[in-house]
Amino acid sequence: MKTKSSKPAAPFAYQGLDRVIHERARLSVLTSLMTHSSGLSFVELKRLCDLTDGNLARHLQVLEADGMVRLTKEDEAGRSQTTARITAPGRKRYLDYLAVLEQVVRDAASTNQSSHELRGKLSTRTA
Amino acid sequence: MKTKSSKPAAPFAYQGLDRVIHERARLSVLTSLMTHSSGLSFVELKRLCDLTDGNLARHLQVLEADGMVRLTKEDEAGRSQTTARITAPGRKRYLDYLAVLEQVVRDAASTNQSSHELRGKLSTRTA
Repeated sequence: MKTKSSKPAAPFAYQGLDRVIHERARLSVLTSLMTHSSGLSFVELKRLCDLTDGNLARHLQVLEADGMVRLTKEDEAGRSQTTARITAPGRKRYLDYLAVLEQVVRDAASTNQSSHELRGKLSTRTA
Repeated sequence: MKTKSSKPAAPFAYQGLDRVIHERARLSVLTSLMTHSSGLSFVELKRLCDLTDGNLARHLQVLEADGMVRLTKEDEAGRSQTTARITAPGRKRYLDYLAVLEQVVRDAASTNQSSHELRGKLSTRTA
């Protein structure tokens, strides 16, 4: 009865690395939106993520179609502006994804040699 | 004179997410090899990463061409077997990449709300 907690057959497969989120530009956009819960304008997102108009528009479409991001057009000083916000299901999926990233980091540090190297590289969160 | 330490213009761009490493199957292979410094056979890698023969062969070629992995054919009980090992430059690049992954995790946890959610998701490495 302990099937679920038994050692996985493929411990390094990382099936939880959701392809929609894992793509670098989308990971940038989603991390920006996670840390700005009131939303970000198209212009702010472009700057934070260093993306071109075309690239950002394309990735936002993918994220909206997938239900992770909600886009709204808002008028500001007579000009229409797009604002992006992460949705509740999007936030949940992002957190599930992050838990897998943390697993990758822990796995990589699981040998003595790499943990020694990592201590040099990573800033201390264990202090 | 503090140009280098100033706040980056695009803090969420994550340019350090090396595309060769970031692809999920290659991240699986490289993490497996980081934790097995004496190398892994093709068969062992297939199992650990849950990849098909064709997929694993293709990704190993990419990693070998990029100098991150060294492949050797070894005879065992009369049968030729491929063994993969991570190279020293490969290990260094992987660690640079990992430092960026850690940054993503820290950024995502930088708001109170998401840190609260993350504490529920991630196992404690800060204890």
